[in-house]
Amino acid sequence: MGKIPVALLGATGAVGQRFVSLLADHPQFSLELLVASAHSSGERYKDITPWKLEEEIPGDIGNMNVDALDFEKIDDIKVIFSALPSEIAKDVESNLASLGSYIFSNASIHRMDPDVPLLMADVNPEHLDLVNQQTKWPGYIVTNPNCTVCGLATVLAPLSKHFGISSVIVTTYQALSGAGYPGVPSLDITGNVLPFIEGEEEKVETECQKILGRLHGGRITPSNFEVIASCARVPVRDGHTESVVVDLFHNADLEDIKAILADFCVTPDLNLPSAPKNPIVISSKKDRPQVRYDLNAGDSPHSRGMSVTVGRFKKRGKKLRFFLIVHNTIRGAAGSSILNAELALARGLI
Amino acid sequence: MGKIPVALLGATGAVGQRFVSLLADHPQFSLELLVASAHSSGERYKDITPWKLEEEIPGDIGNMNVDALDFEKIDDIKVIFSALPSEIAKDVESNLASLGSYIFSNASIHRMDPDVPLLMADVNPEHLDLVNQQTKWPGYIVTNPNCTVCGLATVLAPLSKHFGISSVIVTTYQALSGAGYPGVPSLDITGNVLPFIEGEEEKVETECQKILGRLHGGRITPSNFEVIASCARVPVRDGHTESVVVDLFHNADLEDIKAILADFCVTPDLNLPSAPKNPIVISSKKDRPQVRYDLNAGDSPHSRGMSVTVGRFKKRGKKLRFFLIVHNTIRGAAGSSILNAELALARGLI
Amino acid sequence: MGKIPVALLGATGAVGQRFVSLLADHPQFSLELLVASAHSSGERYKDITPWKLEEEIPGDIGNMNVDALDFEKIDDIKVIFSALPSEIAKDVESNLASLGSYIFSNASIHRMDPDVPLLMADVNPEHLDLVNQQTKWPGYIVTNPNCTVCGLATVLAPLSKHFGISSVIVTTYQALSGAGYPGVPSLDITGNVLPFIEGEEEKVETECQKILGRLHGGRITPSNFEVIASCARVPVRDGHTESVVVDLFHNADLEDIKAILADFCVTPDLNLPSAPKNPIVISSKKDRPQVRYDLNAGDSPHSRGMSVTVGRFKKRGKKLRFFLIVHNTIRGAAGSSILNAELALARGLI
Amino acid sequence: MGKIPVALLGATGAVGQRFVSLLADHPQFSLELLVASAHSSGERYKDITPWKLEEEIPGDIGNMNVDALDFEKIDDIKVIFSALPSEIAKDVESNLASLGSYIFSNASIHRMDPDVPLLMADVNPEHLDLVNQQTKWPGYIVTNPNCTVCGLATVLAPLSKHFGISSVIVTTYQALSGAGYPGVPSLDITGNVLPFIEGEEEKVETECQKILGRLHGGRITPSNFEVIASCARVPVRDGHTESVVVDLFHNADLEDIKAILADFCVTPDLNLPSAPKNPIVISSKKDRPQVRYDLNAGDSPHSRGMSVTVGRFKKRGKKLRFFLIVHNTIRGAAGSSILNAELALARGLI
Repeated sequence: MGKIPVALLGATGAVGQRFVSLLADHPQFSLELLVASAHSSGERYKDITPWKLEEEIPGDIGNMNVDALDFEKIDDIKVIFSALPSEIAKDVESNLASLGSYIFSNASIHRMDPDVPLLMADVNPEHLDLVNQQTKWPGYIVTNPNCTVCGLATVLAPLSKHFGISSVIVTTYQALSGAGYPGVPSLDITGNVLPFIEGEEEKVETECQKILGRLHGGRITPSNFEVIASCARVPVRDGHTESVVVDLFHNADLEDIKAILADFCVTPDLNLPSAPKNPIVISSKKDRPQVRYDLNAGDSPHSRGMSVTVGRFKKRGKKLRFFLIVHNTIRGAAGSSILNAELALARGLI
Repeated sequence: MGKIPVALLGATGAVGQRFVSLLADHPQFSLELLVASAHSSGERYKDITPWKLEEEIPGDIGNMNVDALDFEKIDDIKVIFSALPSEIAKDVESNLASLGSYIFSNASIHRMDPDVPLLMADVNPEHLDLVNQQTKWPGYIVTNPNCTVCGLATVLAPLSKHFGISSVIVTTYQALSGAGYPGVPSLDITGNVLPFIEGEEEKVETECQKILGRLHGGRITPSNFEVIASCARVPVRDGHTESVVVDLFHNADLEDIKAILADFCVTPDLNLPSAPKNPIVISSKKDRPQVRYDLNAGDSPHSRGMSVTVGRFKKRGKKLRFFLIVHNTIRGAAGSSILNAELALARGLI
Repeated sequence: MGKIPVALLGATGAVGQRFVSLLADHPQFSLELLVASAHSSGERYKDITPWKLEEEIPGDIGNMNVDALDFEKIDDIKVIFSALPSEIAKDVESNLASLGSYIFSNASIHRMDPDVPLLMADVNPEHLDLVNQQTKWPGYIVTNPNCTVCGLATVLAPLSKHFGISSVIVTTYQALSGAGYPGVPSLDITGNVLPFIEGEEEKVETECQKILGRLHGGRITPSNFEVIASCARVPVRDGHTESVVVDLFHNADLEDIKAILADFCVTPDLNLPSAPKNPIVISSKKDRPQVRYDLNAGDSPHSRGMSVTVGRFKKRGKKLRFFLIVHNTIRGAAGSSILNAELALARGLI
Repeated sequence: MGKIPVALLGATGAVGQRFVSLLADHPQFSLELLVASAHSSGERYKDITPWKLEEEIPGDIGNMNVDALDFEKIDDIKVIFSALPSEIAKDVESNLASLGSYIFSNASIHRMDPDVPLLMADVNPEHLDLVNQQTKWPGYIVTNPNCTVCGLATVLAPLSKHFGISSVIVTTYQALSGAGYPGVPSLDITGNVLPFIEGEEEKVETECQKILGRLHGGRITPSNFEVIASCARVPVRDGHTESVVVDLFHNADLEDIKAILADFCVTPDLNLPSAPKNPIVISSKKDRPQVRYDLNAGDSPHSRGMSVTVGRFKKRGKKLRFFLIVHNTIRGAAGSSILNAELALARGLI
C-alpha cells in the first residue's frame, strides 16, 4: 500500500524545514506539495530556502518546485501540515478545513478554539475526538502546543494524573531556532540573555491546562492549576532548557515520582512511528540535562528528538523542582504535529 | 588625612582582580599588601596574575610585589579584604581575627556563623553590630553574601519590610566569571546551558533569610520564608540574570510595589562612596533588564555596578514575578565587601 | 568661542550611534541635527533608535527630535557627518556638496572618486588637499576608509614609507557590529565562522593603495602593491582581528620594524582631539592582541578606540607577519570620520 | 574472519574519545584495550571519562574497564592507536615498537623522525613504505599530521602534483576541541578571538613539506615550498576553518584547478572503509564552506567527517585563494590515524 500524500504550508521557514527533514523518509506520509509565499512559486525548494539545519536538505525534496497556495490544487491532498505564521494561518486553515482538508497545525491561532484539539498524541490522545465537534466543515483542524509547552506538558501529565497539581512556576532558557530565521539578531544575543519573548509567556500560562483538561460531552474542561512562566532567550541554537517548580496537590516520595515519570506511556500499543517508547527520560547525573547532550533523546530513528529529558530533581514539601530539555523544533513543533497525524491515521480519521 | 592601608588576600583570582580594580582609586582605602599563594611570593602582581578584566591592570598595583601570607607582616595593616577560596579562608580568617584584624570577606565559610554579620551595608546595615558578639578575638570578621544572593536580597529587603514574604522561587542565568579562572571549560558552555553550579543553590536558599533576619539580643533571628533556587550557567562573561517569583504575605498594587523598590535606600545620609543612591533601578522597557546594558548600573563612578536593575514585573494574586540583573563580581562580591568596610569606617569600627 | 554645529545623516544605524556617542561631548563640534529616514521624522532619537552600544544613550541627544533630510534646513549647518548606506549616500552627499556642505562620510560610494580624499588624518593628512579639486561644487566630500582598511592602512603606512611594500595578504576575523543592525542573524553565526562578507574583500583590496598613494598635481597616484583579502565574520561583538603578511620591498631587522611602527606619528603638532599620540600600539605578549583587551586602545578619553594594536610579529625573509586589532566602529568608522573633520578644522577648511 | 584486536592509548582524552567513537563499529578493528593514566586503572570507561561528544558513549565500550599501561599485557595486541600527549608518547611509543607493536599515532613527537611516515593514507600512501626503514625494532610507528595540516595537505597534494607550489600562506580559525579538555577556559574565548596556539604554527609550517615530499632510497626529500601559518582559536566547538593563499609554480585556469581538486583520489581501488571517495569536496556557494554545515562531509557512514570542503576560490595571477573546512578530530586526528591502519592492513603490514 502506498504512502499517504501530504502537503506542507510554510515550507521554507525554520519550522517548515524541520517538517521537511522529518517527512523526507516518513514511513506513512509522502510529502507531495510544498507551499510557500506567492513570490517563491515555481522555484525549486533548495534554491529559495535559507536552509539552517545541520543535516543536508533531503535530495528529492530539494529539487521539488514550491507552489503558492492554490485551494483547487491542494484539493487532491487531504492531509496538510501547517507551519504558517499565526496571522496567516487563521483564514487559510479555516478555508482548507471548509474544503475538507485535515490540518495538523503548529500555528497558535486555533489552539484555544473550543472545538480544536490541542493535541500531543502521546500525552492526551483522547482529545483527538474533539474533531468530531468541528461539524461546521467537512475537514478538521488539529493543533499541537507551543514549543515550551510541548516539553512542560509532557512532564506535567503524569504528575497531574497521579498527584494533582496546585501550581507551576516555569523559567526558560530558549534556543534561537525558536524565533525562526532571520529571527534574533546576533548583536542582541551574543554574550547576553534576552528576558523577553513576544507572546510566549501567555501561551505557556494557558496551553498546559487545556492539554491536561478533561474531554467530556464534546467539551474540554481545562485543568485549574495556575502557571507562571518566565521566558528568556539564550545563545543556544536548538533546544529549550526549562527550570520547573511544581506544587503538587498530594505529596509523594521523590523516588516514586521519578518512577512514574520514567514509566509514563499512554499509547503503548499503537506503535506510532514518531512516538518514543519513553516520552520522558530521567537523567541521574548531577549536571544534566543539557541541550548539548540531551537534545535528540529518543529510542528509534523516527523518534529522535521526541523524548523529553528530565533531571536535577529536588523536593521541598509538596514542591517538586526539576530541569527539562525539549527539542524545540522536533517535539516542540514539527515532530509533535506529525505524531498527531500518525495518531489520526491509527484512529481511522485519515 | 591619609587613606587607611588595607591588605587583600587572594589577590590574583577573579574576585581578587575585581577588588584590585575597585581599590585602585578608592577615596578611603589604600591597597598596600597583595597576598597570594606562597609560590607567587616576591613576584610582581602583573607578572603572575592572569588578568581577565576588560580594563587594564591599574599601573601602580601591577608593579607591586605579591607576598605570601605572613601573620607578622600583616600586623601593621588592620583592614583586610579576603577573596580567598572557602576552604583556605576558614583558618586564615580566624587566625587574623585573633591577631586583631578586621576582615571583610567574600568567602562563604563564615557567612552562617552566628556571630558573623552577613552584611550588605545598604540593605541590612544594622547587622554590623553583630561584630560586638565576636568577643573571642580582638578583631572581627564581616562577610558579604553569595553573588546571586547580593542581587536577590537587595530586592527582597523592601518587599519583606513592606509586604512580608511567604516564599521565593528564583531561577538564575549565571555568568562565567562567577566560576573564577580557569573556571568553566569552553567546551562545556559554548552553545550550551549548564544546569548545575556546585554548592550554589544551597547558599541561595539559606543566606537571604539571615540577611533579612532581625538582630536582637546579639542574635539574628532569620526570616522564615522558603527559598527554592535553580541555578544554571550560561555563556555570558559578567552579570547574573535572575528570574524571581515572590509570594507576598500581604497583597499590594504593582505600581505601589515598584515605587517602594525605586525608593529603597536605607542609608541615605552616610554618603558611603560605593553606595548607589538607588540600590534598585527599575527598568520599564519590555525586554529589560539585560546584562548587555544593565550590568554596570550605578549613579557615581564608585558605585558603578553596585545597583541592581529590575524589570519585567508581573502580578498573579499575591505572586510577584520580575527579572533582575546583578553584577556578580562588583555588587555580588568585591564591591559589596568594600561597601561593608566603608560602613564600618563610618560607624567608627575601623 | 562656541562649538561648530554639525549634522549627522543616518543617525539611527549602528555607525550613526557611534557618531552620536563620540560627538556627545566633543570639544569642537556640537551635534545639532539628527537626520534619519522620513518615517522617523519628528520622533525623539531615543524612542526610535535600536541603541546597541554598551554605554547609555547620551541624555541630551536622546531627547532631540530626528528630522528627515531637508536640504533647506540643513543649509545652516556646514559640517555634515554621513553614516548613510552607500546607495543613498551617492546622490545625497553630492547634492549637499552642491549646496556648500562639507561632508565627512563613512559611506563607500565616493571613496574611489578621483577628486575625493580617502583620508585618515593621522595617516595621510596631505590628501586632504584633494578637496581643492572639487571645483564642481562649493562644498566638498571627504571620506574615510572601510573599517578593515582603517586598521590595515595604519600599519602599512610606516612600512610602506620605510621599507616599501611588494604585496599584502590579509585575513580577517570581523565583528558583528560591522554588519549593522539587525545585521547578522544569530542562527548564522552562533558557534560558526562565516567566510564571506558582501563587498568587503573588494574594498580591502583597493582602498589601501589609494590611501598610501602620492598626491601630485591634484591627482592621487595609488601605491602599486597587490592586496589579497580574505574576510570572515566571527561571533565577536566589536573589534576586527586581522592576520597580515606583508612582503616588504627592502628587508629590515624585526626590532627596527617594530620601533618604526611604535614611533609612527605623522601629525605630532596638531593636537587633534581624536588623534592618539600613538596610532600604533605594539603588544609584546605572546597571545595578544585580543579584541577582549585591546579594543579600546588610545591614550586620551577622546582617542579611546583610535589606536591600532599590533603583535605576534614573525619574519620569514622579507615577509613580515603580524596580527592587529582595530575598533571597527571607532577607528574603523565614526572616529576616523570625526578625526578627519578635526584636521579640516585645523587646516582652516571649516 | 574475526576483526583485528586493537588497543587505544590515551583513551579518555578528547582525541581518545573520538577514536572510541570511530572504532566502536569499525568493520576491521575491534577495540579490546583502553589505556589511560594509572590512577584510572580498573575503573569503567564511562565512569572516568569526561565524555564531550554529542553522540552518546558507545554502550559496550563505556562498560569496559580502563587499564594502566602494562607492556606485558599489551603484548597480545599488535595494533595500537595512540592519542597520547606528545611528551608521554615519546618513550611509550618507542618501547612498544621495540616490543613489536604497530603504532598508529596522533602524537606529534615522532612525526618528523626520518624513518617514520607522516602519513595520510589517501594523500601520500606510498610513504607507508618508510616503515621498512624502522629496522631498529620489530614493530613500527606511523604518524598522522597535525589537525590543521590534515586539511591543508589534502588540498595542497593535487595542487603540488599538477602545478607545483612556490609558497603557502595559511590563516586559521580553529575549534575549541582541538585544545582537549578542559582546554580553553570559557573566559578566554567567549566573544573573543585568541591569536595564539602553542606550538601550532611550527607544526603547520613544517609538516606539509614532509607529507608532500618524495620517498626515494628509503628517505623522504621534503617539498621545498615555504609555509607561513597564522593560527587563532575562535568560539567554535568542532571544525577548523582555514583561509589559504597558494602561490602556484605554474599558472592554470581556475576551473581546471577546481576540476583537479574535485577529482583528487589516489587510492580509488583500495576501498578502505574510512576513505571518502572524494577527499576534497568543492562548494560553489558564495558563503561556504562553513563549519556549521560542512563539518561532517564524507560519502559513507565510515568516512563521515573525512572529506575536506573547499570553496571561495579566487585567483590573482598565480596566487590561488580558498577557504577550507576540516573536521579537526576526525580527518584531523583519530579518523586519519584509523585510515592509516586500514591502509597498512590492505598492504599486508598488519
